[in-house]
Amino acid sequence: MNTLPHSRWLLSLVLLFSLLSTANSRENHLIPQPASMQLTDGRLAIDGSFHIGITGYDEPRLRSAATRFIHQLSLRTGIPMLDLVSRDPGAALVLQCAHAGENVQSLHADESYDLQTTSKQAIIKAATPVGILRGLATFMQLVELDGQSFGVPSVNIHDQPRFLWRGLMIDVSRRWIPADIIKRNLDAMAAVKLNVFHWHLTDDQGFRIESRKFPRLQQMGSDGNYYTQQEVRDIVAYAGERGIRVVPEIDMPGHSASWFLGYPQLASAAGPFSMERELGVRDAAMDPTREEVYRFIDEFIGEIADLLPDEYLHIGGDEVNGKQWAANPQIQAFMRAHGMKDHHDLQMYFNQRVLTILQKHGKKMIGWDEVLHPQLPKDIVVQSWRGQSSLAQAAKQGYMGILSTGYYLDLMEHASASYAVDPLSAETANLSKDEESKVLGGEACVWTENIDMQNFDSATWPRTAAIAERLWSPASVIDVDSMYRRLEDVSWQLQWLGLTHRVSSPMMLQRLAGDANPAALTAMDGVLEPINCDIRRRVHHYTYLTPLNRLVDATPPESSAAREFTSLAGNWSANEASLRRQLTLWRENRAQVLPLLQSSTLLQEAAPLADELASLANAGLEALDYLDRRQQPPADWINRQRSLLQEAGQPRAELLIAITPGVAKLVDAAAIAGK
Amino acid sequence: MNTLPHSRWLLSLVLLFSLLSTANSRENHLIPQPASMQLTDGRLAIDGSFHIGITGYDEPRLRSAATRFIHQLSLRTGIPMLDLVSRDPGAALVLQCAHAGENVQSLHADESYDLQTTSKQAIIKAATPVGILRGLATFMQLVELDGQSFGVPSVNIHDQPRFLWRGLMIDVSRRWIPADIIKRNLDAMAAVKLNVFHWHLTDDQGFRIESRKFPRLQQMGSDGNYYTQQEVRDIVAYAGERGIRVVPEIDMPGHSASWFLGYPQLASAAGPFSMERELGVRDAAMDPTREEVYRFIDEFIGEIADLLPDEYLHIGGDEVNGKQWAANPQIQAFMRAHGMKDHHDLQMYFNQRVLTILQKHGKKMIGWDEVLHPQLPKDIVVQSWRGQSSLAQAAKQGYMGILSTGYYLDLMEHASASYAVDPLSAETANLSKDEESKVLGGEACVWTENIDMQNFDSATWPRTAAIAERLWSPASVIDVDSMYRRLEDVSWQLQWLGLTHRVSSPMMLQRLAGDANPAALTAMDGVLEPINCDIRRRVHHYTYLTPLNRLVDATPPESSAAREFTSLAGNWSANEASLRRQLTLWRENRAQVLPLLQSSTLLQEAAPLADELASLANAGLEALDYLDRRQQPPADWINRQRSLLQEAGQPRAELLIAITPGVAKLVDAAAIAGK
Repeated sequence: MNTLPHSRWLLSLVLLFSLLSTANSRENHLIPQPASMQLTDGRLAIDGSFHIGITGYDEPRLRSAATRFIHQLSLRTGIPMLDLVSRDPGAALVLQCAHAGENVQSLHADESYDLQTTSKQAIIKAATPVGILRGLATFMQLVELDGQSFGVPSVNIHDQPRFLWRGLMIDVSRRWIPADIIKRNLDAMAAVKLNVFHWHLTDDQGFRIESRKFPRLQQMGSDGNYYTQQEVRDIVAYAGERGIRVVPEIDMPGHSASWFLGYPQLASAAGPFSMERELGVRDAAMDPTREEVYRFIDEFIGEIADLLPDEYLHIGGDEVNGKQWAANPQIQAFMRAHGMKDHHDLQMYFNQRVLTILQKHGKKMIGWDEVLHPQLPKDIVVQSWRGQSSLAQAAKQGYMGILSTGYYLDLMEHASASYAVDPLSAETANLSKDEESKVLGGEACVWTENIDMQNFDSATWPRTAAIAERLWSPASVIDVDSMYRRLEDVSWQLQWLGLTHRVSSPMMLQRLAGDANPAALTAMDGVLEPINCDIRRRVHHYTYLTPLNRLVDATPPESSAAREFTSLAGNWSANEASLRRQLTLWRENRAQVLPLLQSSTLLQEAAPLADELASLANAGLEALDYLDRRQQPPADWINRQRSLLQEAGQPRAELLIAITPGVAKLVDAAAIAGK
Repeated sequence: MNTLPHSRWLLSLVLLFSLLSTANSRENHLIPQPASMQLTDGRLAIDGSFHIGITGYDEPRLRSAATRFIHQLSLRTGIPMLDLVSRDPGAALVLQCAHAGENVQSLHADESYDLQTTSKQAIIKAATPVGILRGLATFMQLVELDGQSFGVPSVNIHDQPRFLWRGLMIDVSRRWIPADIIKRNLDAMAAVKLNVFHWHLTDDQGFRIESRKFPRLQQMGSDGNYYTQQEVRDIVAYAGERGIRVVPEIDMPGHSASWFLGYPQLASAAGPFSMERELGVRDAAMDPTREEVYRFIDEFIGEIADLLPDEYLHIGGDEVNGKQWAANPQIQAFMRAHGMKDHHDLQMYFNQRVLTILQKHGKKMIGWDEVLHPQLPKDIVVQSWRGQSSLAQAAKQGYMGILSTGYYLDLMEHASASYAVDPLSAETANLSKDEESKVLGGEACVWTENIDMQNFDSATWPRTAAIAERLWSPASVIDVDSMYRRLEDVSWQLQWLGLTHRVSSPMMLQRLAGDANPAALTAMDGVLEPINCDIRRRVHHYTYLTPLNRLVDATPPESSAAREFTSLAGNWSANEASLRRQLTLWRENRAQVLPLLQSSTLLQEAAPLADELASLANAGLEALDYLDRRQQPPADWINRQRSLLQEAGQPRAELLIAITPGVAKLVDAAAIAGK
């Protein structure tokens, strides 16, 4: 076996992100784009004397934000900065906050700010500390190294979000995501101005929060992987310092199998219960007919109400299949006695009981689509996983809603796909002004059926930044090329916050290569993309104990190399030399990578991809040959290439070769060459 | 600037490296190599059912080590592992610990262990928990992915360290290193079986530990960058869990300027004092003639004695130049009154007073070379920065010592250089058995004049692992090629512990490139090495406020690409194709990289390196041409190449081109071609 010298590994790593890096002149690096911005002449230089003056309202959160900002700026620039925070109105960066914000940040927090920079000074003005935080995030993204030094361009920005609710949901129940990963993701969220961390804390496969009243919840329902109350407090405080609300999700009455190991009396079916390891919708549901269940929920919600102080609590409420209710004679009798015609009626009864409990503890309810029911009060929020139609329906009934359809990051779609999804489009496009105001925003969601702590960051970033822009910036901001360029900037910046989205794939590829050099594997993987994970689950049996160490797990969601290739192929005559060199390398890579793929059980499944990539590259080269000669290719050639392309559109090892559309462009162009 | 040619160009470079890789079979990946090891047939497969049984003595530290081990193994393999730790004697890995260890780990802790693995089970046996920890570190390094799955080979290992004291000193005073970086470095230390974290907490440029009795120490002497007592407690506990002693260094009477801002009454000269920003030996020293100084030290040591419970406390004691003592009439009068002939006598008086204080608080003294004096008790330890001669001199007087000469990582020497330094060599080579036993080991040292939190990990790892092997493994383990191969393994493994040694350089290069593609810069940087930082300081004025964001700061200490090239060049005829491709890429890189270097103030200084690298590559290619033709080159050609090589041996921008020796080999070979 070959050894892996550092230099080679490094080059592989650099390759990965150099392919992502595009140098294009553009007016700014900001993501999300601000509501309004004018560039003026000049720039504010940043050097070791940089310091911050807080001249208006002052509070500890502003102080710590300013201090954190300077530490981060110092790290980002490599310039020691020891002058920290004062009340100096002549400081390089002045924060002018008008007044205090809310004790607990609400849905309606004022996040607007103005940022004005000149060659002398920068000033951020905002009504509240949260607005100042947003302005600081903008300032950090403006920092650039030009020919002279580090600095920020002179700008005049007036900014506020388009939507009030801009979230990231993290499913910590299916696969465990420890507190340090949560914290760095909160840092990343703050960098792109997201304001809601939706913490999916409980589900069938794990109960991830410590209860002191009902300790068997986490003791028996978490495999030992849960957040202590102290960790919850820390994370809530950490988020609060960054202007991020923490909305906990405690799923009921379905998605609740993990409760029943410790407390079988809550269940609709008889035990014994064991940890749920299977994916998909499970049958387990609480028994809505028993008063003990509501007492339990009341006590548990009471225990966590202050720990998680947000005004909203997410009850899940989705995907109850009703099987256990149908099989339980006592529940059936209850339903008949109360004139309930189906399990939806029973669930509505349950929701109303739970709502009363939430209200008792000062909480409003949020739930998935299925909770929507005209008997609920108008302060509930519906989170749509079904699409804009649910939101439109809710809005017309006077209910608030947020969109998550199109923002499921675990589906491994391109950033451009999520970017194209607007909460006010399709069925929500023609709402009245008042109805429109009910559409609060949206949430990116990371469900962890096929994602774990190894690759969580790379599944989440930088794509989440594109969704953050959709939710913050004006609806008119839709230039995909610009978005991808700025996504690349923010991706690099997120590394300085400790995010591992750019290193996890190289580490996992090296693991697959064992003692061998991973360069050829890296080159191949650079043009692969994982298929939609719903489809993955249809072709491969996954449980929560399935190792995530195959090539598909190591492969980032989106291939920039393929995107660039497709773009070049669209204008082949201007880019022929580049296209040929790239295609030649992909064709030649087969001989390098095949021995490696064949040597390992974990990689064998990917061997057909090496053949197919070489064939595709060859097709592209032959197409260029015909194009060069302006020669019409024989029909037989065209047919063979089209069938190859169709074949290449089929997944192998749950992966797709992402240059297929680019090669198709070349073949299509060749097919009409000479005509 | 169009980046696509860069990415393709880099891709070809990566593929080239993959062609160059050299196959090496070796018996194991372990670093440090164990004292004794037999490989037998078979392997223990590792899957999701992996769990640990503690069958002998049990304690919380063993439990948490076992749990941490399984979490780490699960992350490293990508295999969910939910069965954790029990007392099951049939577990895949059984820990048999004979009895408890010391409450506070001492110099004489028993670290020996036996590890036996078969296809059925692995057993680690040790007298104490620290031995078990060492065995677990070995087991983790044995994990490999072969054709079938993850597993460990069947082995029989009896292991114990050659030296008792195997340390890493981190200077957190010159440049601030936060607690999270310390913690991940403790993880890395444990992975290579180092057992002493020497924490250089105070120096002229910063007082980095919170005192509650004397809060102005950190308030005025740290720029706000210090460890709270709670952080100190956390770090000591974290180290203890990993079998690592924490030896604090509190420098006195010199290297103490940071004390005087808050407490000028301790100083030998009149104030006012301000933070020391200059490098090099400073004049500031405590006043050894004043009783108040000893009362202060007594109270301060008393405050931290339990917080930092190791039996040893490092007092520094080095580099007192005596200038302030000479300039102070009262001190001069004191010296005359006590018959002291020079400042060494006064320092010895001070040391003896401090020793009494240490003893009162249950501490033994360690200090740098200069503290050695026959009046001190035999339980002190001398740390040598001057070389084996000090150690030999100490040992002959009955004093214990550790070596740091040759292990200063900030000097940026190759791992092979430190690896060649043996504490028992040169003047210590011919000590008696008894004297030899006084040489306790050594410490790698990271002084942070030119290193900060951005590049701390890359300055420290993986080179420290080579020093760890020198201090743990038998003296006969000296194969440099084997060391470099295993260093590469451990380097990859350290990434799974969160070390950033492989990503900091790419991040810093991207910063230098600004919006441009960093590929060509990365290719050039891959064959550069920073010069010795003592020389850097002679050619460039550095203070502690100097930004560390130039190319030299981004460049890792050692170029693997250059090492490999030099090795190939030594056998040019077998490697000609590879050499030519590599040289051609380096020659062509000039055109790619020059515009980038010229566009930035920070990079301009490196432009001559691009020219020189191209010239060197060209010289190598011409040399190969002569060699191919078996043609004697003209004397003029030889002279020109030799003068080019000499010129290339001179640093530019504090960097050297590390392929120069390899090109010299080719030129030397060509010079006798045809003869």
